Amino acid sequence: MNDALKAARSNTPRIDTDRLWARHMELARIGIVEDTGNCRLALSPEDVAARDLFAGWCRNAGLTVHSDRAGNMFALRQGRDSNRPPVAAGSHLDTQPHGGRFDGISGVLAALEVVEALNDAGIETEAPLAVINWTNEEGVRFAPGLLGSAWYAGRIGDEELDNIMSSDGTRFADDVQDSGWRGDMRPADLPLDSFFELHIEQGPILYDSGAQVGVVTSVQGLRWLDVAITGRDGHAGTTPLDSRQDALLAAGAILVALRKVGIAAGADARVSVGRLTSMTDGPSTIAGHTDLVIDIRHPDKAVLARLEEDCTQACHAAAREYGCKADVSRRFAIPPRNFDGNCVSLLETAARKLDLDYVNLPSGALHDASNIAELAPTAMVFVQCREGISHNVQEYAAPQDLAAGASVLLHAMLERAGIASVE
Amino acid sequence: MNDALKAARSNTPRIDTDRLWARHMELARIGIVEDTGNCRLALSPEDVAARDLFAGWCRNAGLTVHSDRAGNMFALRQGRDSNRPPVAAGSHLDTQPHGGRFDGISGVLAALEVVEALNDAGIETEAPLAVINWTNEEGVRFAPGLLGSAWYAGRIGDEELDNIMSSDGTRFADDVQDSGWRGDMRPADLPLDSFFELHIEQGPILYDSGAQVGVVTSVQGLRWLDVAITGRDGHAGTTPLDSRQDALLAAGAILVALRKVGIAAGADARVSVGRLTSMTDGPSTIAGHTDLVIDIRHPDKAVLARLEEDCTQACHAAAREYGCKADVSRRFAIPPRNFDGNCVSLLETAARKLDLDYVNLPSGALHDASNIAELAPTAMVFVQCREGISHNVQEYAAPQDLAAGASVLLHAMLERAGIASVE
Repeated sequence: MNDALKAARSNTPRIDTDRLWARHMELARIGIVEDTGNCRLALSPEDVAARDLFAGWCRNAGLTVHSDRAGNMFALRQGRDSNRPPVAAGSHLDTQPHGGRFDGISGVLAALEVVEALNDAGIETEAPLAVINWTNEEGVRFAPGLLGSAWYAGRIGDEELDNIMSSDGTRFADDVQDSGWRGDMRPADLPLDSFFELHIEQGPILYDSGAQVGVVTSVQGLRWLDVAITGRDGHAGTTPLDSRQDALLAAGAILVALRKVGIAAGADARVSVGRLTSMTDGPSTIAGHTDLVIDIRHPDKAVLARLEEDCTQACHAAAREYGCKADVSRRFAIPPRNFDGNCVSLLETAARKLDLDYVNLPSGALHDASNIAELAPTAMVFVQCREGISHNVQEYAAPQDLAAGASVLLHAMLERAGIASVE
Repeated sequence: MNDALKAARSNTPRIDTDRLWARHMELARIGIVEDTGNCRLALSPEDVAARDLFAGWCRNAGLTVHSDRAGNMFALRQGRDSNRPPVAAGSHLDTQPHGGRFDGISGVLAALEVVEALNDAGIETEAPLAVINWTNEEGVRFAPGLLGSAWYAGRIGDEELDNIMSSDGTRFADDVQDSGWRGDMRPADLPLDSFFELHIEQGPILYDSGAQVGVVTSVQGLRWLDVAITGRDGHAGTTPLDSRQDALLAAGAILVALRKVGIAAGADARVSVGRLTSMTDGPSTIAGHTDLVIDIRHPDKAVLARLEEDCTQACHAAAREYGCKADVSRRFAIPPRNFDGNCVSLLETAARKLDLDYVNLPSGALHDASNIAELAPTAMVFVQCREGISHNVQEYAAPQDLAAGASVLLHAMLERAGIASVE
């Protein structure tokens, strides 16, 4: 190691907490909802405004900004060796309709802040770096979510991508074109050395443990089950309790039973019902048909399969108990995924070097990193968010925690890319 | 008793089963839904067509047809003593959006058939008779239901009535005017001697017992409780099961707990939840807020009050168990009502005289008769409906059961009105 490199490593590049926070707050001015929230649906005018603001920051930082068929944005910083694939980081700028100011945004801004810190310290890396904004992670205007990264990873074809219709009735390809962010870069043009995604945890584990950051070892596998409960419509005043086939009551019993199934499977299990609708809906009507969707997650494939089976049985048993019938069908399944051991290790090393309290945890939510992990070594760093609240205008991550996460990202990326020279 | 009266009483007037059934089927052609169902919302073009058809039948039967501010229709048959108030019977011609061919209709047509039978037998009554169609019993286009009879009974004022808006955004008074059925008759112009309402049971008690008809002794009291359950929004993938405040899960537990409260209160108790909505609705969202409405019914006032208290406590306890909070408030209350002893007795006597199997039962549903009972001696006769199914296109009552109910009505009304002469 030459003197310049030694100096660079001792004179550690530093994340600028204030700059990182100020950019969060500036982006949060676009699409304000209920003071502290944001609505920037993918490829909406608000999303386009956020993209343009972000692109301006990237260009000011000396990056060249490219895009592809899906509108994914890649801001590139040259490395000494232009033949090496870039070490990438990023996330998404789109939000939920009543979303927060951090979900996704923090990952994009942290990646940009890594570049700014290297610029400030005059550090050139061996490998190039890329700051990425993936299109339509949230899946609100266009289904499914994680769309840009799914196409990039080859999970969705060109034609299928182009023809996805928005909830407003517009075509995805047209919206990308109109946004000004349809580019001709192909995934093969830019193979990634690795991908790091910083994201707020969106859960309470870090908040409850007091850790600022988490190193994500895996993404939970997911099953969605559609449950259709059939009973018999009836009149609430006339039908004796013991001759009812109340589908909504059966659904209630199913919720309680599913909770027990989840608890029995241990701390990593997630079993949830967030959508439940009855075909009839009146205070004096006994529901003859109720539908619900079960969301099941676990990092272990075998446990996940057993959970699916146990949930299915619980539905049948609870429906039968109230004279109803449950049809259970799997809507989709995503297998659990372990992140790349080297990338995870780089994040852990960085956290230790920075003397940060960190915990290892699986990701309960899906992220663009889940798709990119199919292509390149990938890992994620989580930042503590207040009370674990997300998809909510109350979502909050503290400036110092965002900076801690960005510092971990910086050191992991720097280690992966290698220092070429210091000014 | 003179010879003519003796002859009339031995030569009993007879309900014409075929005519009664044919009129049901002819009315059912207006607003057909799914072959065997009807959609004739109050004052819709379909309801107006049904009213006009009914009015034509009445006029052909020699009745004079009057109406009032609410569009209630009164078809009058002269009695020998025109100073006596009429003995009335009727129900409603409007239906649910996916309603059946009997709910309400059967009561109007049975009352008309009573007049036809008396015409056929050449019987003049002492008191006049009235056949009534009450406006907007179902409460679908205009809330609340039982509207025409509620106004008639003085429970709603003129101005309030006029300004009720339909779900289509039209004004009640304008719709009545446009229907051609706004008349200037005032309730005080036509005090009723008594009111009888024939209705399908809309429950399974007669069907299960095999009885063709039931004599209704009372209408259950009703409580509606609004329950607002507050938890905390969360992400289904990230939030551990034991740190959730899942309002929808708490609602599920409340449904199960309410069922137990109802069962514990005995066979006459009804506790139902038919409306349940969550503020958030996504398969991966933990609901932070869920609302539901509890419908509680019992014929005994004290039991009803205890049920309300027990249901409230059950909501609090179940919500607490899942880390949520339940706010319970009473939306409205209708006290139990006993029907008039003499009217009930006339119906029972008629059923026995006709050698019909009948049962006494309380009405679980509210009916226009509940309102009219505030003004005049009132009672109801129920007709068996298949499997107790109602508010459903599968609703069915057999021709012979409808005729049995109409025969009970005929004899009770005749007894109440008195025979003046026989042709």
